[in-house]
Amino acid sequence: MPKEMLARYAAMTEAALERFFPQEEGCAGRLTEACRYSLLSGGKRLRPALLMEFYRLCGGEPEDAIPFACGLEMIHTYSLIHDDLPCMDNDDYRRGRLSNHKVYGEAVATLAGDALLNRAFEIMLSQTAVPAERAMAAAAYIGRCSGVFGMIGGQIEDLSLEGKTPSERELLQMISKKTGALLRAACVGGCLLAGAPQRSLAAAEQYADALGLAFQIRDDLLDVIGDAAALGKATGSDAANHKSTFVSLYGQAACRRRVDELTARAVDAAGDFADGGFLQALAKQLAGRNH
Amino acid sequence: MPKEMLARYAAMTEAALERFFPQEEGCAGRLTEACRYSLLSGGKRLRPALLMEFYRLCGGEPEDAIPFACGLEMIHTYSLIHDDLPCMDNDDYRRGRLSNHKVYGEAVATLAGDALLNRAFEIMLSQTAVPAERAMAAAAYIGRCSGVFGMIGGQIEDLSLEGKTPSERELLQMISKKTGALLRAACVGGCLLAGAPQRSLAAAEQYADALGLAFQIRDDLLDVIGDAAALGKATGSDAANHKSTFVSLYGQAACRRRVDELTARAVDAAGDFADGGFLQALAKQLAGRNH
Repeated sequence: MPKEMLARYAAMTEAALERFFPQEEGCAGRLTEACRYSLLSGGKRLRPALLMEFYRLCGGEPEDAIPFACGLEMIHTYSLIHDDLPCMDNDDYRRGRLSNHKVYGEAVATLAGDALLNRAFEIMLSQTAVPAERAMAAAAYIGRCSGVFGMIGGQIEDLSLEGKTPSERELLQMISKKTGALLRAACVGGCLLAGAPQRSLAAAEQYADALGLAFQIRDDLLDVIGDAAALGKATGSDAANHKSTFVSLYGQAACRRRVDELTARAVDAAGDFADGGFLQALAKQLAGRNH
Repeated sequence: MPKEMLARYAAMTEAALERFFPQEEGCAGRLTEACRYSLLSGGKRLRPALLMEFYRLCGGEPEDAIPFACGLEMIHTYSLIHDDLPCMDNDDYRRGRLSNHKVYGEAVATLAGDALLNRAFEIMLSQTAVPAERAMAAAAYIGRCSGVFGMIGGQIEDLSLEGKTPSERELLQMISKKTGALLRAACVGGCLLAGAPQRSLAAAEQYADALGLAFQIRDDLLDVIGDAAALGKATGSDAANHKSTFVSLYGQAACRRRVDELTARAVDAAGDFADGGFLQALAKQLAGRNH
C-alpha cells in the first residue's frame, strides 16, 4: 500500500515538474536542459509526497498542493546541484549519473541551481487553487526551512565540520538543518497550506524530525553495508568523502537501534491524524529500505 | 530634489536590510557576514527606490513596500555575487572592494548568494502590511523577472556571447533580461503591489525599459571615458573582460544620442503619473551621472 501511494504521488509530481519546466528553445535551452537533467532524474519524490499527504490529511485535495510539492522538489534539487560543485563537496556523481557540473560545466550548473530556487517560489506564488493567505503562509515557512536557519545553515555547518570529528550535538544539529529542514517544510508546509490547527502542525513537525533523522542514519548505514563499495563510489557518499557519519561515530548496531526508535516515534506522531496509515507505513518502509 | 528623495529611499532601505539580515552568532555567522558584506556595501539602491516610488505613485505608503524593495535588492546582490565567481565572470573586485569569494571563499560565496535569493522571497512572503493577493502578485512578478525568462536568462545569454561579436538584437535582448528585468520588477512590481490598473503597469514597464537601457549604455560609456582606466580595473568592467558593449560596437557619439533618446522616452512614460516628477528627474540624473 505505501509503495503504491508513494508511486502515485511520484507520478503526479513527475508530470507536473515536466509541465513547470518544459524544454526551451534558443539560448535558455541549455539552462533549462541542465535544470531538467537534475530535476527529472528520478528520485523518490519523498518531499512532494509528504507535502501532498499532509495536505490531504488536513482536508485538502492533493492536486491543489502540487505547485508547493514541486516547488519543494526544485529547492531540494537546486541544493544538490550546488552541493556537488567543485567548491563545495566536489562530487562527480549523483544518483549514479554524472553530476550537473560534470555535464554542463560549473557556470551553467550554478545558474541552473539559481534558476530552480527562483522558479520554486515563482510557481508557489503563481498558483490560484489555494487562498492567498494560506499559500503565503506555506511558502514563507518553506522559505524559512530552506534558508540560513534551515537547509543553507546546515550546508554551511557541514562545510565547517569537514576534517573534524563532530560531537553528537553538532552532527545532530547539522543534519536537522541540512536534511531535516526540508522534510519539516514538506510536512508542516502541507498542514499550513490546508489551514490546519496548531496540534496538527506540532504532530507534523514531530513526524518530520523523527523521519528525517531515521532517514539520514539509514543512508549512512546503506553507505557501509551490502553493495556499499560500489554504491559509495557511484553516489559520492559522505563515507567516500571522509566525512564523519553516525555509523563512523557510533557503529552499525547502535545506528540500527536508533533507526528503530526514531521510526516508532514517527509512527506515534502519525497516529495523531485519523487517517495516518500511509505515513506510518512510509516510515517503516524507509527504515528498512536497501537503496 | 531627486538626489534627496533617492537618498531618503536609500536610507530606508539600508535600515531595513540591516534589520532583515542581522549578524548571527555561531556557525551561520560566517555566512551572514558574507551576505552582509555584499548587501551592505553601498550602491545606489536604485531598485528599492523605484519600487517604493511606483508604489507611492499608485496610492501606497512607501514604508509598506519595504519588504519587497529589500527583497529585490537581495536578489540583485545575490546575482552580483554569483556573477563574480571564478566559473562565471571571475571578477576579483566589485564596487572597488574585493568580490565576495575573494574574501570568504567560493563555497561560502555560493551559499551566501543562495541565502540572499532565498531570504528575498522569505521576507516578501512574511510581510503583513499589504493584502496577501497583491503581495503574491508582486512577488510572483518579481520571481518571473529574476528567473529563466528574465535576469538568469540574461546571465546565460551573456555567457554564450563571450568571445563573440553580438548583433544589436542579441545585445539588446541580453541586456533587457540581465539588467532590464530587475528594473521592470521594481517599477511594475511596485504598481502590482498597490493594485494599480493596467494603464499604470504599461507606463511603468515603458519607463523601466527606457531607463534600464539608458543606464546600461551610460555604464558602458563610463567604462571608457574619464578616469576609465583606473575604474575599469577596480570594478571588473565588461570592457576589461573583453566583452562587447554598446560603446565598442557603435562608438561614443552614437551611444550618447541613444542615452538621450531613451531618457526622453522614460520622462515621457513617467508623465503618465500625476506626480511623476521624481521619476523624470531621476532618469535625467542617471543619464548624466559620472559614476
